[in-house]
Formats: sequence, C-alpha cells, structure tokens
Amino acid sequence: MSIVAVGSIAFDTIKTPFGVAEEIVGGSLTYFALAASYFTDVNLVAVVGEDFGEQQMRVFAGRRVDLQGVEKAKGKTFRWGGEYSYNLNSRKTLFTELNVFESFQPKLPESYQQADIVFLGNMHPSLQLSVLDQVTSKRIVGMDSMNLWIETTANELRDALKRVDILKIDDSEARQLSGEYNLRKAAAAIQKMGPQMLVATQGAHGSMLFNAADIFAVAAYPLEDEVDPTGAGDSFAGGFFGYLAQSRSLDEATLRRAIIFGSVMGSFCVEDFGTRRLERLSFDEILDRYRKIKTLTHFEDV
Amino acid sequence: MSIVAVGSIAFDTIKTPFGVAEEIVGGSLTYFALAASYFTDVNLVAVVGEDFGEQQMRVFAGRRVDLQGVEKAKGKTFRWGGEYSYNLNSRKTLFTELNVFESFQPKLPESYQQADIVFLGNMHPSLQLSVLDQVTSKRIVGMDSMNLWIETTANELRDALKRVDILKIDDSEARQLSGEYNLRKAAAAIQKMGPQMLVATQGAHGSMLFNAADIFAVAAYPLEDEVDPTGAGDSFAGGFFGYLAQSRSLDEATLRRAIIFGSVMGSFCVEDFGTRRLERLSFDEILDRYRKIKTLTHFEDV
Repeated sequence: MSIVAVGSIAFDTIKTPFGVAEEIVGGSLTYFALAASYFTDVNLVAVVGEDFGEQQMRVFAGRRVDLQGVEKAKGKTFRWGGEYSYNLNSRKTLFTELNVFESFQPKLPESYQQADIVFLGNMHPSLQLSVLDQVTSKRIVGMDSMNLWIETTANELRDALKRVDILKIDDSEARQLSGEYNLRKAAAAIQKMGPQMLVATQGAHGSMLFNAADIFAVAAYPLEDEVDPTGAGDSFAGGFFGYLAQSRSLDEATLRRAIIFGSVMGSFCVEDFGTRRLERLSFDEILDRYRKIKTLTHFEDV
Repeated sequence: MSIVAVGSIAFDTIKTPFGVAEEIVGGSLTYFALAASYFTDVNLVAVVGEDFGEQQMRVFAGRRVDLQGVEKAKGKTFRWGGEYSYNLNSRKTLFTELNVFESFQPKLPESYQQADIVFLGNMHPSLQLSVLDQVTSKRIVGMDSMNLWIETTANELRDALKRVDILKIDDSEARQLSGEYNLRKAAAAIQKMGPQMLVATQGAHGSMLFNAADIFAVAAYPLEDEVDPTGAGDSFAGGFFGYLAQSRSLDEATLRRAIIFGSVMGSFCVEDFGTRRLERLSFDEILDRYRKIKTLTHFEDV
C-alpha cells in the first residue's frame, strides 16, 4: 500500500536550552514523510517557495518519497520559529510566516489519485477536504488537526471528520474537540463525529488508541537524551500510518503494533535537532527500539 | 510477610466539581492500609485525637489491619481540606490543621519490631528515621516523600534515603529531588542516594519502576468516571507494597506485577469520594482490573 500525504514543508528555526538550529528543513509533512518512508512509499502534496532548492530537497533523496506533488510557487517558503523551555515540554512560537503556504491549493498528480491511505496533515479543513475530493479510490483516511482549527473552523472541521477513518491528535486537542475532559468520553464523542479510531498522543507520557470498543495504551519510551521535540507528533503519525500501509491490514493486533512504531519514530525524532535523527536511522534501530518498548512494558499475568 | 506502615490518619474535607465530602476519614496511612490489606497484614503507626472515635475506626473493621500502634492523643485529629478544579488534575489546599500530628512521636509496639516490610509514609524525615530505628529485623524499607521535605529538610531527607530500598514519589518530585529533568537521569541520581529502586508515579498518566538497570513503564488505566483523586498515590503504594509482602519476593517479574497492582488500587480509589471505593472492593474486582490492564497494554512482537 502507498500513502498520499498532504502537509507543510517549511524552514524551521528552533531554539532549545541545548542549542539553536536556523532555517533547517522542517514542516509537518517532512517529518511525516521521513518517518513513513522507512515502511512504505510516500507521495507528497505540498508547496515550497523559490528559496527551496536542490540543497533543501536533499533531505528526501534516496528515500521512498515521491515529490511530483510538491509544487514550487512564486515567493518564499513557509517559515516557523519556536523556542523551548528547559524541560522541553512547553514551547513558545517565535514567528510564523505562511508565505506561499497562505494561498496553497493542493493539487494531486494523476498518479496519486489511486491512493490506498490518505493522510491529511494539520491544516485548514477545507484544504484537507479538497485533497479527499481528488482521490478516486476507496481508501483509508487519516487526519491530524489542532486547536486553531477546532476554535476557528469548527463547521468545516466537522464536515471533514465525517470522511475520516483515523483521527490522530493530542489528548488535549481530543478534549477540546469533544468538550469532554475524560479521555474515554472524549473518544466516544469523537467516534460519533465520523472517525472509527482515535489515536491520542500524550507527548512524553505515551499514547492511546481507541478503536470501536477496544482501547490500547502504551507509555512513552523513556529517552536518555531529549534534544528537540519538534516534529515528534508528525513522526509518530508517519510511523503509525507507514506501518499500516506496509501491513495492509487494520486488525487490532496490527493497529497496536502501528502505535508502537509511531511511538518509536516519535522517540527517535526527539533525540536530535530537526530531522537529523530521522535522516540517519536504520531499520534495525527501529526494530531494536520496538523490542525495547516490548521489554520495557512487559508484565506477567496473575 | 507483614507490613509496618507509618503515616497520617486525618479528617479530610474534599470539594470537587461533582460534590463535597466533609470530615471523612482520610490521611495517607488510611488509604495505604485499606489498599494493602487486600494483600497482607498491615500494622499501623499513627496518631489520632480524642475526636476520633469508634465510628471513625469502623473504616478499618474486619480488615487485615492492626491498630495497636495507633496512639490516641489529647487534642484534635489532623484535618485537611482540598478543592479540585474541573479536570481533577490541579488541587488547591483549603486548610491544613496539624493538631495532634504536630507533636507526633511514632512509637512501635513490641510486636511490630520484627517487620518484614516497613513503609515510611510522607512525613518529616526525622520521624521516618525514628521509626526505622525501632525496627530490629532486617527488612525492606519503602518511603514516600514530597516537595515540602525536599525543600525544607534536605539534609535529613538525604540521611533517611541512605536507609531506603524503594522510594515511591511523583515524577515531578523525582525531578526536584535529583535536580535532573530527564526521568532516567533523575532515577540514576536517586539510586546513588540510597534506594535501589524508584517508583515514579505520574498521576493520570501511569507509572514507572527503575530497578537497578531495569526500567518498567505502564500507562494508567483509563477510567470511565473520575470522581476524587485524593489518596490515589497512597492507594498505589498500598497495592504495590501489599503485593510485594504477599509474594515474598523482589524479583523483576514480581516487582512489575506489584506496579500493576499499585496502579489497580490507585485507579479504584479515584472512582468515588475518599475511601468509599476502597472500602467496598472485592479481590475479584482487583484481579479483573489487573487483567483489563494486561489486555489494554498488550501488543505482539515483530
């Protein structure tokens, strides 16, 4: 199975207590694609500006990533800057320059229209819907979103959710979207909006999968060194949907393994600035961390 | 194996968005003892005032709880009041009246001096040390503590920690005690202070066990109804040490099961005000929730 994924490609400036990285290639789709490409072919839909050249494209070189759907538009690439506090758990946005992303109209190349899995990265729900409208195959639809769209485009978001199979958001966003603080109640409310499944990530605390009446919960892998959490959620999504595409199944055992692979990719992402750690990963390292999480969380029956 | 446990017995007034409970029997030792008594015999060391009568003692009636070490002193029983915000995750202390607890000097009855497991509930580290000094057997020592003692009695706490085997504190307290934000580094630093094991609870997010070089992590059981988190951490400790006492072992598999039983008892505690849910539990319900957590967290190898 292949994935068509839409999202942002950006220049990120990241400040943490451990250092600064300026104008490195980031954006939600970049993290998603790098993570997913360890498992399957990923077809990207995005826009970059004239300042995004060969050198920047190199991050995707030699990977299972198709760039036909990445449009080069007149103007500058989306730019984002963020600064993390000492504990890396709170982040302040320093600036957001939408640039070419402001007038982005996703256009799917013909070869993308038979997608098996469509992943709608975090963006205006109308853009997410316009991508769905261009896919002609029967497919699995995954979606990410955020507080901004819950607050400002509630109706469009509701419309989009009706066509989504798997919603992947933070637990705080799940609470906000549903108006329920209790996560089980939040999941039940969201399942009534359309998605059969909710993947609720909890930052450094782990993640949960609500699939019909089944619930799966896993603690996060405890890292020895946390460097930069930028992109961890997108990398989680990449690992999760990438593994689903590789497995060609949505049974409960596969979904649970996909959550673990999501957790694995998210944890690697945090180990270095930007996409650096994702770029120098091997599949053996991915499998090794999966097994470490298995050992870490194993306990016997009574 | 039996447990000797020292801590507070109190009158609690609890306000939550779901209701109010006034002057109900609480205190860290009450929760600990009720939870542990489902697994083993618990010998209590505490002080109550003249206002703590037969009616209040009834909470312990018919349980595997020995009250010989509960001294009745002149004056009023320790009182505490707290109020929870809508999400139950943040709490404001309304009042603390130490009363007879202020001049508490723990005295162990002779029959307690051959304890197998000593649990030092959250209190001034000098009092914790005075309990240890009265135990003549070679035993396993568990300890709870809090930010107040980390901040105001650092030296005494360091002295006490040298004699502790298992420290059970919140993850935020582990970070504060060690000065390390990263939980693995925090655990390593704390293990150098004395305790071989750190049990770090993370509220509604789960818990972790650091045992020498082994790490175990489990997500919290997602409750359908959360009513009152008061005493959840103490109930966790009761389940954890109670199961260790019942099992007469400290091997890794037993310790991991003990963490799950701790998590089970903490989760039940939250389902009703004060000790109500702990009082009307059956061991079958405890086993059933253990198995639910097993199902909830299970995933297959790759």
